[in-house]
Amino acid sequence: MSRPLPATPFLALDLPVLDANIERVADWAAERGLALRPHVKTHKSPEIGHRQSEAGASGITVATIGEAEVFAQAGFDDVFIAYPVWLDAERASRLRRLAAEGTVRVGFDSLEAARRLAGVGVEGIVEVDSGHHRSGVLPDEAGELAAQAADAGLVVAGVFTFPGHSYGPEARIGAAAQEASALRVASAAMTAAGIVPRIISGGSTPSLAATGEGLTETRPGVYVFNDAQQWELGACVPEQIALTCHATVVSHAGGRLVLDAGSKVLGADKAAWASGFGRLLDHPQARIVLLSEHHAVADLDGEPLPPLGSTVRVVPNHACNAVNLVDEFTVLSQGRLVGRWDVAARGMNA
Amino acid sequence: MSRPLPATPFLALDLPVLDANIERVADWAAERGLALRPHVKTHKSPEIGHRQSEAGASGITVATIGEAEVFAQAGFDDVFIAYPVWLDAERASRLRRLAAEGTVRVGFDSLEAARRLAGVGVEGIVEVDSGHHRSGVLPDEAGELAAQAADAGLVVAGVFTFPGHSYGPEARIGAAAQEASALRVASAAMTAAGIVPRIISGGSTPSLAATGEGLTETRPGVYVFNDAQQWELGACVPEQIALTCHATVVSHAGGRLVLDAGSKVLGADKAAWASGFGRLLDHPQARIVLLSEHHAVADLDGEPLPPLGSTVRVVPNHACNAVNLVDEFTVLSQGRLVGRWDVAARGMNA
Repeated sequence: MSRPLPATPFLALDLPVLDANIERVADWAAERGLALRPHVKTHKSPEIGHRQSEAGASGITVATIGEAEVFAQAGFDDVFIAYPVWLDAERASRLRRLAAEGTVRVGFDSLEAARRLAGVGVEGIVEVDSGHHRSGVLPDEAGELAAQAADAGLVVAGVFTFPGHSYGPEARIGAAAQEASALRVASAAMTAAGIVPRIISGGSTPSLAATGEGLTETRPGVYVFNDAQQWELGACVPEQIALTCHATVVSHAGGRLVLDAGSKVLGADKAAWASGFGRLLDHPQARIVLLSEHHAVADLDGEPLPPLGSTVRVVPNHACNAVNLVDEFTVLSQGRLVGRWDVAARGMNA
Repeated sequence: MSRPLPATPFLALDLPVLDANIERVADWAAERGLALRPHVKTHKSPEIGHRQSEAGASGITVATIGEAEVFAQAGFDDVFIAYPVWLDAERASRLRRLAAEGTVRVGFDSLEAARRLAGVGVEGIVEVDSGHHRSGVLPDEAGELAAQAADAGLVVAGVFTFPGHSYGPEARIGAAAQEASALRVASAAMTAAGIVPRIISGGSTPSLAATGEGLTETRPGVYVFNDAQQWELGACVPEQIALTCHATVVSHAGGRLVLDAGSKVLGADKAAWASGFGRLLDHPQARIVLLSEHHAVADLDGEPLPPLGSTVRVVPNHACNAVNLVDEFTVLSQGRLVGRWDVAARGMNA
């Protein structure tokens, strides 16, 4: 007899799909001669990180010192914090401890931040803005910043960007081209300033397939799971979705499907271009049209409603934020429970 | 010397503001002769629930059995699960245990759900749809459903609605009127069917001030904290905002303010009518114009940017979802740390 599943709503991983996603992208990166440094903020799980390493990942990417600490404790010794971390005394001492145990690189986009990184034992990587307009200097400013940071005592290992503007309809290919162009301009500016970049790093899941020339490394995150955003952007097919939220049908009010999965387990993400608050894996025409904390109301486009009490698999819009809401993954293979994996770095925002 | 604050980003409570919010609404309900049964899904904190009880709350409202269990363990013995819970065997036994220790009432909007609630020791409360179109039967269907549920062996204690359509510009007063009307129609239908409702329950924070006649009970949640949504809807003034996320300025890229608080601590909520992804308490003109997992980019409308490394107080759009992302509140009074309170029911979605 198989072990019982938890009460809904819970986040389930389809293990064969997860492993296929990990293999596929690892093989793709190997064929292109690109180092693959997955962003583990998506899964926050050392178990999944180890599977990525075994498939050939060259190290990991994290967003915070807290995530780096959780993964360091699990044996990961080559970490890039792809974020313009601002060091105060507390963070400096945490970073110094991490750097004593392995290779730690940290993003920066100002001389003030670089000065604080100098002397704690980490390498710096200049962040450039390739069109997402979040953080990062302009590509042609990278040379001057890198040289000033080096003068301030920081070892500058390279340059990175996040082409987050790949998250939009028909935006993936253009964003990948802008990523490659920004990194090329920045690398040339750094080289001209006497700081030859060893690492030239980009990557997002939507832009991955169109990655241009000149990068040494890519840092996708969501590809391990995929989600309704990737499905909608055409960056995956439904058979490549490894993460779903199992939800119970609790009401048929108004002739619609009401599920017990709300924004407290799916996340409230809804990009301006998204067609809903999430989708149903087994009902491709359906859209979640109303989402509150514990209710998802789905429009099934005329399909008969699954009965009260039945289970439906919801695909969250944004896997990273859904995962950050739960303490564990329920790991399934052929629908049977095969494990429970901790979301060990959940909530590690600092 | 005062104790140090945690590393940013963290959720801070302003204790005097919190207490004033609790008192103000308790006094208002008492003056109107309304029972106040706060929805504790907002704070998930027994400490705050006890403060609400001491100010006169008649019991608590929760959304899930898991939340009810956490609060029962902390001594709360009068709980309404304002949700159309679908009982399977596991949930039935959990509910039976809860009902053995105190008064437990549960929402329902179908006869099938009512049949499952009969016999586990709880009372049922019919849910009606007053215009939010989420769950609930139509008001004039409440009599028939209540009578059928009673025939199936369920003690039907009353009727409830959630006027969630109060969340919209200029929608608060109309939603309160529809709430009162729906509850009046439903109560009359139930009385005509021989089930006189003892409890007639409504309530949302935006509609609170306009609550109409005929209710016996109100269930607001967000009023304890308030948030950017309430601020924007005119349901509070900034001086009544008790919950903020303390964030560090990490970048001035593009001449904008980049903060280390993203959707993993603020939540990704952005209603169609919201002017941004959150606001800054000390910069009322500012809007968060771009939010990703660990970055908030704020437009300060021409104000000079606070310096790199300084701390800014962000008001989340939706307090309930922000709170569900953290394990504890950092409790401040006059800016000094006076406590840390567990978000004990965080993640209790089932």
